[in-house]
Amino acid sequence: MPLTRAWLDSANQPDCDFPLNNLPLGVFTAKGARRCGVAIGDRIVDATGLEGAGLLRLADTPVLDQPAWNALMGLGPAAWASLRAQLTALLREGAPDQHRIAPFLHPMAGAELHMPFTVAEFTDFYASRHHATNVGTMFRGAENALPPNWLHIPIGYNGRASSVVVSGTSVRRPWGQVRTPDEPAPRFAPSARFDLELELGAIIGQPSNGPVSVAQADQMIFGYVLLNDWSARDIQAWEYQPLGPFQSKATATSISPWIIMRAALDPFRTPTPARDVPLLPHLAEPGPLLYDIDLQIDLTPQGGQPTQIARTNYREMYYSSAQQLAHHTTSGCPMRVGDLLGSGTISGPTKDSCGSLLELSWGGKTPLNIGPLTRSFLEDGDTITLRGAAIGDGYRIGFGTCEGTLLPALPDPYGS
Amino acid sequence: MPLTRAWLDSANQPDCDFPLNNLPLGVFTAKGARRCGVAIGDRIVDATGLEGAGLLRLADTPVLDQPAWNALMGLGPAAWASLRAQLTALLREGAPDQHRIAPFLHPMAGAELHMPFTVAEFTDFYASRHHATNVGTMFRGAENALPPNWLHIPIGYNGRASSVVVSGTSVRRPWGQVRTPDEPAPRFAPSARFDLELELGAIIGQPSNGPVSVAQADQMIFGYVLLNDWSARDIQAWEYQPLGPFQSKATATSISPWIIMRAALDPFRTPTPARDVPLLPHLAEPGPLLYDIDLQIDLTPQGGQPTQIARTNYREMYYSSAQQLAHHTTSGCPMRVGDLLGSGTISGPTKDSCGSLLELSWGGKTPLNIGPLTRSFLEDGDTITLRGAAIGDGYRIGFGTCEGTLLPALPDPYGS
Repeated sequence: MPLTRAWLDSANQPDCDFPLNNLPLGVFTAKGARRCGVAIGDRIVDATGLEGAGLLRLADTPVLDQPAWNALMGLGPAAWASLRAQLTALLREGAPDQHRIAPFLHPMAGAELHMPFTVAEFTDFYASRHHATNVGTMFRGAENALPPNWLHIPIGYNGRASSVVVSGTSVRRPWGQVRTPDEPAPRFAPSARFDLELELGAIIGQPSNGPVSVAQADQMIFGYVLLNDWSARDIQAWEYQPLGPFQSKATATSISPWIIMRAALDPFRTPTPARDVPLLPHLAEPGPLLYDIDLQIDLTPQGGQPTQIARTNYREMYYSSAQQLAHHTTSGCPMRVGDLLGSGTISGPTKDSCGSLLELSWGGKTPLNIGPLTRSFLEDGDTITLRGAAIGDGYRIGFGTCEGTLLPALPDPYGS
Repeated sequence: MPLTRAWLDSANQPDCDFPLNNLPLGVFTAKGARRCGVAIGDRIVDATGLEGAGLLRLADTPVLDQPAWNALMGLGPAAWASLRAQLTALLREGAPDQHRIAPFLHPMAGAELHMPFTVAEFTDFYASRHHATNVGTMFRGAENALPPNWLHIPIGYNGRASSVVVSGTSVRRPWGQVRTPDEPAPRFAPSARFDLELELGAIIGQPSNGPVSVAQADQMIFGYVLLNDWSARDIQAWEYQPLGPFQSKATATSISPWIIMRAALDPFRTPTPARDVPLLPHLAEPGPLLYDIDLQIDLTPQGGQPTQIARTNYREMYYSSAQQLAHHTTSGCPMRVGDLLGSGTISGPTKDSCGSLLELSWGGKTPLNIGPLTRSFLEDGDTITLRGAAIGDGYRIGFGTCEGTLLPALPDPYGS
């Protein structure tokens, strides 16, 4: 699929994240209020304004009068397609009525961006074979790296929706109970092994109330965001047996501010990798369900320059979001509009394609060089920036950035 | 504290669950719509109607015009106390204006009850020492029954809010991926080890955005319900390593329809049990935080008679809800109005005081007698009824019932 040219020149540049083929959905501040917006080139279209002016029509009553895209999601796939078709007609090269649209365009530079949707519930998975193998090798040895269930089901756990924040929100180093193997008793201390996890987040746009197939699950997915599942490794190591991660993952999870709709990514579909053991029928793939999305992580120390610490690709995953979602419904678990499913850390086969510092520094044994500095885990003031894009023929479907800065821990909140 | 006498005789009977000292909050159908209601004796007071008629005033604008108690919770402790004081003044023996209240009283018999609040997020804990010891002994042997962290932190995991249902909702036996130790490969099958878990649910009535102390946490708790955390043990055994329970707990969690406000339970406070090892300061108890609540489980086979299969007490817990909530915030995890915290299965020290069939039948090795039948796990058509009450001097603070019937599994949803 070639570039669809827009009448805004900035959207036609090959290095632009937001060409007309993309049309990602966000929430931004304009005229003193939060409004639904669509990124195009170096501008944001005020979609709430377009709907209010009758230039965009999605349903009999307004759906963009709230600063979140959940209502549009709830309308279903026909409305999703209609939104893209209407916006394309308004913004394509040669479109009539450009003078009527122009007043609804706002500069993206300096725009204040907010959570693009209300997160109903958040689930996080563990679905990159390279990541699971790396972590398993560190904790259980190479012989027992993958748990027996890993090749048969996408392992997941429920996260905490209240902790999901939009890119740009600072993250406070947490306190927690920790105990290293050589300590006689646990202590309450700031996390000393605070980490990032590079993931993709899938946003559920249609509800279910019973088991769904992988093909149905794929159609329920509205779009994707970049996701950083900040993780306190020392808290996790002490708490996770036997019921899994809890406070180690609850400080914050950052997402990028633009929802990339599934339709924009369709030209970039790729199959999951070959299987050592076949999947049971309820998890089998009806077609290619991953995407070729180039991903990178930059680390910027306080007052320093960014260093790219990893580069990987979403096509490296063993399980797709659609397979994860189908698994999520096997029990009859109801899914809701606005549920967020983290892909799990996306790691590739090489050392420099891992999605966490835990792997990149091999548990702190091989610290990374960051300019003149080294890093095993995050230091106060470090900024992590995730970037992602699917690369097309003369254009890119960019995700923008998912960024967060680590603030120092507060004084002991309990004065203990 | 003695019985506060009401002008409704049914509320003054010693075996009544809902005397004036209780005043539990629910949502019921009256005049064709869902309304907020308060149980008193054998009646439900239409609280939405009282507020609309100006007989109950909680804020400058209506808070009971939605069929959920979340808005009242959000107003905070002064409004909670005011609600109880106003209702007590209207309903106490000798109160004036009884004729003005009478039209707002509806028979409880046959009333349709709904979810009393909107669940923001659901967290479940593992905080009865007897339960953890029993389960640990079955799975890891008596020597390793309690994980090393268990005596230091209340172990918890995030559950699925979308799966919480009100008492009376039937529960469908789930399918899932299972593999027993003697099977060479997993299969997709209906759960053959479907179980109940007797718990208490604590409802969070005030938000937090950073660590809170145990004393602060106690004040954030609005009230309590009975909770049955239905559990598919065979699915759980296969899926739970390394990230904890997921689909095994996502079919349904049932709660009783009446929120028992914390103030009603205050006279029944008891301390947590003595500690083998002291807790770190952030989890230490500032005063008695458990409650003396008598609990029981009945199992009724399809077409049969109820058999009491266990009787226990909430005072048996090792960690209180306030300690669990304080732990939940250590990472900075934001808590929201309507969060629900399951206590974890409540088991006592004896065989017949265990809160799950897994323990009562010792993993199926010692099936229970249910009249002429036996049970290791639940059979299709079985109804589980939880009951609870704090027993006062001539009155009881009853929870009502938390009930659910197990429906047979559907045909293979994937036709595999």
